[in-house]
Amino acid sequence: MGIHKTTEKNLMVFSGRAHPALADEVAEELGTDLVPMQAHTFANSEIYVRFDESVRGCDAFVIQSHTAPVNEWIMEQLIMVDALKRGSAKRITVVLPFYGYARQDKKHRGREPISARLIADMFKTAGADRLLTVDLHTAQIQGFFDGPVDHLMATPILSKHIKENYGDRKLAVVSPDAGRIKVAEWWSNKLGGVPLAFIHKTRDVTRPNESVANRVVGEVEGRTCILVDDMIDSGGTICQAAEALMKDGANEVVIAATHAIFSEPAVERLTNSVATEVVVTNTLPLSEEALAMDKLTQLSIAPLISRAIREVFEDGSVTSMFEGRA
Amino acid sequence: MGIHKTTEKNLMVFSGRAHPALADEVAEELGTDLVPMQAHTFANSEIYVRFDESVRGCDAFVIQSHTAPVNEWIMEQLIMVDALKRGSAKRITVVLPFYGYARQDKKHRGREPISARLIADMFKTAGADRLLTVDLHTAQIQGFFDGPVDHLMATPILSKHIKENYGDRKLAVVSPDAGRIKVAEWWSNKLGGVPLAFIHKTRDVTRPNESVANRVVGEVEGRTCILVDDMIDSGGTICQAAEALMKDGANEVVIAATHAIFSEPAVERLTNSVATEVVVTNTLPLSEEALAMDKLTQLSIAPLISRAIREVFEDGSVTSMFEGRA
Amino acid sequence: MGIHKTTEKNLMVFSGRAHPALADEVAEELGTDLVPMQAHTFANSEIYVRFDESVRGCDAFVIQSHTAPVNEWIMEQLIMVDALKRGSAKRITVVLPFYGYARQDKKHRGREPISARLIADMFKTAGADRLLTVDLHTAQIQGFFDGPVDHLMATPILSKHIKENYGDRKLAVVSPDAGRIKVAEWWSNKLGGVPLAFIHKTRDVTRPNESVANRVVGEVEGRTCILVDDMIDSGGTICQAAEALMKDGANEVVIAATHAIFSEPAVERLTNSVATEVVVTNTLPLSEEALAMDKLTQLSIAPLISRAIREVFEDGSVTSMFEGRA
Amino acid sequence: MGIHKTTEKNLMVFSGRAHPALADEVAEELGTDLVPMQAHTFANSEIYVRFDESVRGCDAFVIQSHTAPVNEWIMEQLIMVDALKRGSAKRITVVLPFYGYARQDKKHRGREPISARLIADMFKTAGADRLLTVDLHTAQIQGFFDGPVDHLMATPILSKHIKENYGDRKLAVVSPDAGRIKVAEWWSNKLGGVPLAFIHKTRDVTRPNESVANRVVGEVEGRTCILVDDMIDSGGTICQAAEALMKDGANEVVIAATHAIFSEPAVERLTNSVATEVVVTNTLPLSEEALAMDKLTQLSIAPLISRAIREVFEDGSVTSMFEGRA
Amino acid sequence: MGIHKTTEKNLMVFSGRAHPALADEVAEELGTDLVPMQAHTFANSEIYVRFDESVRGCDAFVIQSHTAPVNEWIMEQLIMVDALKRGSAKRITVVLPFYGYARQDKKHRGREPISARLIADMFKTAGADRLLTVDLHTAQIQGFFDGPVDHLMATPILSKHIKENYGDRKLAVVSPDAGRIKVAEWWSNKLGGVPLAFIHKTRDVTRPNESVANRVVGEVEGRTCILVDDMIDSGGTICQAAEALMKDGANEVVIAATHAIFSEPAVERLTNSVATEVVVTNTLPLSEEALAMDKLTQLSIAPLISRAIREVFEDGSVTSMFEGRA
Amino acid sequence: MGIHKTTEKNLMVFSGRAHPALADEVAEELGTDLVPMQAHTFANSEIYVRFDESVRGCDAFVIQSHTAPVNEWIMEQLIMVDALKRGSAKRITVVLPFYGYARQDKKHRGREPISARLIADMFKTAGADRLLTVDLHTAQIQGFFDGPVDHLMATPILSKHIKENYGDRKLAVVSPDAGRIKVAEWWSNKLGGVPLAFIHKTRDVTRPNESVANRVVGEVEGRTCILVDDMIDSGGTICQAAEALMKDGANEVVIAATHAIFSEPAVERLTNSVATEVVVTNTLPLSEEALAMDKLTQLSIAPLISRAIREVFEDGSVTSMFEGRA
Repeated sequence: MGIHKTTEKNLMVFSGRAHPALADEVAEELGTDLVPMQAHTFANSEIYVRFDESVRGCDAFVIQSHTAPVNEWIMEQLIMVDALKRGSAKRITVVLPFYGYARQDKKHRGREPISARLIADMFKTAGADRLLTVDLHTAQIQGFFDGPVDHLMATPILSKHIKENYGDRKLAVVSPDAGRIKVAEWWSNKLGGVPLAFIHKTRDVTRPNESVANRVVGEVEGRTCILVDDMIDSGGTICQAAEALMKDGANEVVIAATHAIFSEPAVERLTNSVATEVVVTNTLPLSEEALAMDKLTQLSIAPLISRAIREVFEDGSVTSMFEGRA
Repeated sequence: MGIHKTTEKNLMVFSGRAHPALADEVAEELGTDLVPMQAHTFANSEIYVRFDESVRGCDAFVIQSHTAPVNEWIMEQLIMVDALKRGSAKRITVVLPFYGYARQDKKHRGREPISARLIADMFKTAGADRLLTVDLHTAQIQGFFDGPVDHLMATPILSKHIKENYGDRKLAVVSPDAGRIKVAEWWSNKLGGVPLAFIHKTRDVTRPNESVANRVVGEVEGRTCILVDDMIDSGGTICQAAEALMKDGANEVVIAATHAIFSEPAVERLTNSVATEVVVTNTLPLSEEALAMDKLTQLSIAPLISRAIREVFEDGSVTSMFEGRA
Repeated sequence: MGIHKTTEKNLMVFSGRAHPALADEVAEELGTDLVPMQAHTFANSEIYVRFDESVRGCDAFVIQSHTAPVNEWIMEQLIMVDALKRGSAKRITVVLPFYGYARQDKKHRGREPISARLIADMFKTAGADRLLTVDLHTAQIQGFFDGPVDHLMATPILSKHIKENYGDRKLAVVSPDAGRIKVAEWWSNKLGGVPLAFIHKTRDVTRPNESVANRVVGEVEGRTCILVDDMIDSGGTICQAAEALMKDGANEVVIAATHAIFSEPAVERLTNSVATEVVVTNTLPLSEEALAMDKLTQLSIAPLISRAIREVFEDGSVTSMFEGRA
Repeated sequence: MGIHKTTEKNLMVFSGRAHPALADEVAEELGTDLVPMQAHTFANSEIYVRFDESVRGCDAFVIQSHTAPVNEWIMEQLIMVDALKRGSAKRITVVLPFYGYARQDKKHRGREPISARLIADMFKTAGADRLLTVDLHTAQIQGFFDGPVDHLMATPILSKHIKENYGDRKLAVVSPDAGRIKVAEWWSNKLGGVPLAFIHKTRDVTRPNESVANRVVGEVEGRTCILVDDMIDSGGTICQAAEALMKDGANEVVIAATHAIFSEPAVERLTNSVATEVVVTNTLPLSEEALAMDKLTQLSIAPLISRAIREVFEDGSVTSMFEGRA
Repeated sequence: MGIHKTTEKNLMVFSGRAHPALADEVAEELGTDLVPMQAHTFANSEIYVRFDESVRGCDAFVIQSHTAPVNEWIMEQLIMVDALKRGSAKRITVVLPFYGYARQDKKHRGREPISARLIADMFKTAGADRLLTVDLHTAQIQGFFDGPVDHLMATPILSKHIKENYGDRKLAVVSPDAGRIKVAEWWSNKLGGVPLAFIHKTRDVTRPNESVANRVVGEVEGRTCILVDDMIDSGGTICQAAEALMKDGANEVVIAATHAIFSEPAVERLTNSVATEVVVTNTLPLSEEALAMDKLTQLSIAPLISRAIREVFEDGSVTSMFEGRA
Repeated sequence: MGIHKTTEKNLMVFSGRAHPALADEVAEELGTDLVPMQAHTFANSEIYVRFDESVRGCDAFVIQSHTAPVNEWIMEQLIMVDALKRGSAKRITVVLPFYGYARQDKKHRGREPISARLIADMFKTAGADRLLTVDLHTAQIQGFFDGPVDHLMATPILSKHIKENYGDRKLAVVSPDAGRIKVAEWWSNKLGGVPLAFIHKTRDVTRPNESVANRVVGEVEGRTCILVDDMIDSGGTICQAAEALMKDGANEVVIAATHAIFSEPAVERLTNSVATEVVVTNTLPLSEEALAMDKLTQLSIAPLISRAIREVFEDGSVTSMFEGRA
């Protein structure tokens, strides 16, 4: 008995105020519009949101990139998720082109927080069923969320650009930090097994009480060095790495990173750096000043995210987008 | 069998960066110091905290008042709670002299969040065992937290001041809003049963499509009106109410409120308002400009909070501080 | 691979034994029948329920109004929800035309429970996914449930009746209690901005140790007073309020309330009261004696509830039923 | 740093209104008093409780026996637990001399609830840390609660009485039901390996469509039969069993059970039954009429419960009270 | 607005490595194949699994029978559930033809675990939404899982075999243990009300310090005894019971049990036992040696499980498969 | 009121059967004994545990190292935790000298589990309050547990041995894998800034379809290479790395790792390897064969673990044991 009805599902895309250009592009790729909503910040700095249309029963994707001011945008997204839960959305996927606090993914020293886990738990508490994110600082963060995490890789987009533009040169892949060589190793394979190097930050043993030297470990002489990382924050580490490579005889240095945080004074540093090109994606919004840099190439991850959203919505396969990886 | 040892408990007081003056005063009243910690905001706007001393096994009280920028301070406090949980604190009490987002305590319209519940849930998720707060916007918010909430009242401090300074005049207690007369009723009883009034915001029926009138309901003529509320945000409502009271024949208007949010342009409005005195507490930090107002009286709630913390620590009674109420 | 099948959803309506007439009316409006079930109370007072048909995969709506004996009916509904969960219902919406223990929504004094939160948590624990309720005592109770709450308003039904029957008279809207003027304010707007008043219960200052006076605050002289509240329990407060209004010169008093609890001796008091009409809804069942009162008008909320259930089932909008509110 | 203090614990005993005599006896055995509290039922049948003293930091034991009206007393106890949780009790042990709904411990048929699990979950949700109970209908119910359960046995008290009064006769132990022979087996061992029998309820094969016969399986002829069960509800099964035993040649029948529910018409049935003595405990309150039965012997479990509470409070061993069992 | 799409559901069947033959048979009955997956055990004994196809949005049924080594297979199944959850399966039903640790369903003595509850909780934690299992050791285990449990009965399959092969003889149903007579009672009814007996293990009173005797309680002389139990582990109890029955004059003994655990030295014992036939199902895999026993009859439960899976998938009724029971 | 008593705490140490020698050593260092318990595996491979003494109110530390058979020992430890929870232990710390499944800390490819998170969640579900572990495969695993994790480092013990025995030679620190250079970097600093190298596994570009080469990146010629890792499993990677180092001109190779898993054929490989010394700790038990290797040095971590347990018990600082790290 009862009243029977065929079930329909309805994909709705929502965006906070952190990076609307990316969300618009994603929605457009999907062939829909962002759901109109009111979002404003009161005089006392509290955030208010309200959706202009019914969200009942929808399959919601809530896009927010955790750019500065990070805490504002995290809170806005949490409040959006709460409103969707209370408004009877059927399923809520939190889309994080850039996951805030990802670097605080462990206690580096005692009595520290693990903020990346806290972020995952807070989204769960607010009502998120799933996460969709891009190039996490460490892949282990997937395990911080109690539910499905679709972890997209922007590195193929970056490496395709490198291959097309530098594929005929004598390359080396370099990690600016000992802790992130795994990513560089992925690049090395992708570029056909080119040599791998990394920068070893160490005390100069001849002047023990003085300062830190950037020692290049690996062969870079006469090569075009692709200096790879997941993110560029204030740019200090990566620009010093580029300099160390040139000192060690590199032919040229190209920087490639997914997330362009570009905190002060990143733009200035990159502009003055020896690197000849800086390739990033648009997971984070860039300032006018940053976009004005001649050496900057910005590639869009909107097609990647929109395709992943469609696979999630249609119960397809996100894994197949990356040849089985992640 | 095993190794036996008498159990000790250890009260430790922590403060975020929102309102250190109040936290210092609370610690001093308790006869201790704030636990030293590092807290800073990275260039990309993420917050980092670390305690300089072991917090293992302590009975932690984490003070943060949700002043602007509200989202920064909420996030900092959540991160502190996470660090305390992971650092093996035994019990964590979140102390909120002012509870952010308290006004979003229900869906005023469809498809809104209930942010005040979200805040309670997030502190629970981060690791809070208990809350201690002052004059909640609605007492029902106590029920948003799954655990003990000690709800302190600053109104006795305010009403004592009024009684001492205006007790010999012909008083009326006025609520600036129909929704908050219950608080005014408490004041009326406290001041010996003086008349009660409120401001009824209504459309002027003769000019239906035009504007809102502030109609005074109750007897205020020839009286010193004590205009009471839980908080003053940008000051618009309360200053209009004061004006309406004077128009209706009040002798003078005194404003009393626990939480001085004082968003722009509150200071300007209060300075220009017909009210002769504005009595508030220090649950929130005030700007230099606000503190410079001649008509402002700021009373400290530090003795109240420190006494409540001591009762909580020593398993005494917080209820007895308020004659059984709350 | 696998076996594919189009998904269907199936609305099923269940009713406990508290108020079957209302549930029947709701089912009929929906064009279906209540799912037959066994429900009885054993000799030792334990309750037993069992559904006569498979509930697997259904979208269940479980109607129970918390009339006396409240605890029996709450427990019966909890047991029904447990049986639905274990019987593999897909989604369970608890329908509460009247939400029991709603008045214990905060600690009025220390060491009290917050029973309204307990009720919400118990339904969650039993397996409820959502709540649907009518005119909560305070709207904050929405925030007590961790999930979607559809909060319906019966006040438009009541105000329509008032407008049709008294719209041409000189009206005032009166709240019997300082704490509930917000509801009266809504009525005032709905009736075109008519004056607002409330009853201030206070100690008579001339005889301090004696008794409580009901002081009318606001203009009621020569007016038809609409005395509004969310519920009428034993009727004491509201009948005294009606009397106070007549003493202050009101022309007539009409009582309007959503929930007719009518505990002893409400019927006697209302019968003898100066009020000329008492308008209520059928969220709660009424005794024969109550229904026999000449001055009683009972309006049905079944159309409202059934429409809301249909919107929930069909992923429509409940908000749109109330012009955006709630 | 911080403020140091030696930790004390404080045992406080609370009782609902279901069976105050037992709670008083328990408190007296412990050498303390029940914590005074207000508990009353409003006209509309909602229950209200409030403790008259601070419960902050206490080790609370909340005694309520689930006698009729079961749902009232369960709800009252849940509300007490909520008030203790919100009043900052340190640990809450729910003491259930008789656990309501224990017989609904599985789905006997499809689409039934498992109410015994629901009860366990509701106490957990309200804030209970532990349960302490006596002779559960099935021991598996221990596993329904997510936390420690102290499961006391009253059967040693009953068997001691039997041994002292019938130890010199030729005994048999009989279970009135095929499903509960395990308990009878325990008795048989306790009484020195006396024969075991049970009543097999079956259709009489010669008159298939007619009725149920009580067939005795085992040797009972010429013996004093101890008919044992965990509870006596309306007494039908056990009185028919007694009759069947006498028909099969038993010398006399003595009934022993822990929980005397005694629903209508148990007293009448037991009075008229062939059994010569009925031995029960006071886990449940008895009516005057029941206590007036000549053949009734009521033994107190207060010493057992108070000793268990003391062991729990002092971190002793409850297991040692029962030679390792339970 | 948004993108609309009709919802489909997709049944996928998964199997661990414990008993692939049964899973294959179930899949075949359903008309599908097991989802291909990689599952292997690393050199250090950790288990690894990965599905070869997308499981996004599927209705997953994960079959694993807890045969020895039990802990391996439980862990493998938990890991499969985790992988399904993280792979975005829509609903996960854990299918347990035999539920491991079911006998540790209570604390038999103090300071024991309740491992059967632990198992239920671990599957919940890993991500299971529902359980489907066969002939639980005690039906109360249903209540250990917080969600729907479909409890299938294999006993009708066994009793059908007995009726067909022994229906014309003079039967008795015997339980080998006092604690499991309820099951025997079900058999007795099913076989037309035949007499019931059980084995009472007791100290021989004439030689108190010596050993345990198996005393038959009930009439078995001259009858074909159907000795029934839920499982046969090492076979000691049941073979001794068979012997006792023959000594007491039984004509022949047939053993019937759902779960053939057959731990060492069950096969030897059963081969040497006086029982003439041993009827079991294939809820557990049997060794070659066991299958070679002449007296063994193994009946398949694959049709039962596959039908139940289909009912669950299609929102039909599992209860109706067992005439309302379960 | 109530009964007052000073609170005592009682440290009790428990050990599963995986690695009793280590647990004994830890208990001895603490000056106590392991709590006696029964633990055995039934014929059908289920595990049973029971404590021989009351554990009520104790501060329990449950030591189990996840050696092969890993799943057995994990399950045994979970069952022990369940028994402690149900036996009313006050606080339960799970001590994992080696954390099983730590390498499955992320989805390396799609549709994989994150078993390391599952392990953390299962201990939480069973009742663990805290974890204490040694040299996690990745530090992010700390964030998998919802509660405090004390993460001890055995590397200082290993590096002290290296310094004492090789401190006067020309050293290099080498990581056998690109993903673990961070650990090597820590060693390099600890040994005074010696050069760092790693092994880059890559396709030989001259024979693309053939095999994998181990390319050394960094300076190792003429140096004593300290090849460091967190664990040695079957030894393949590390022995190939040692060989590659010798081929590249290293003087000698010393292997240092915390966890000696030593799966087949690790002992054979290490014996035959070019490495001259293999330094490990006793976080895992070693076979006789392994202990017989001449080149093996096993250092005890028992002093480290026992000191950490004491700090945890006495609310001291674990962080201070490692100069602020972790």
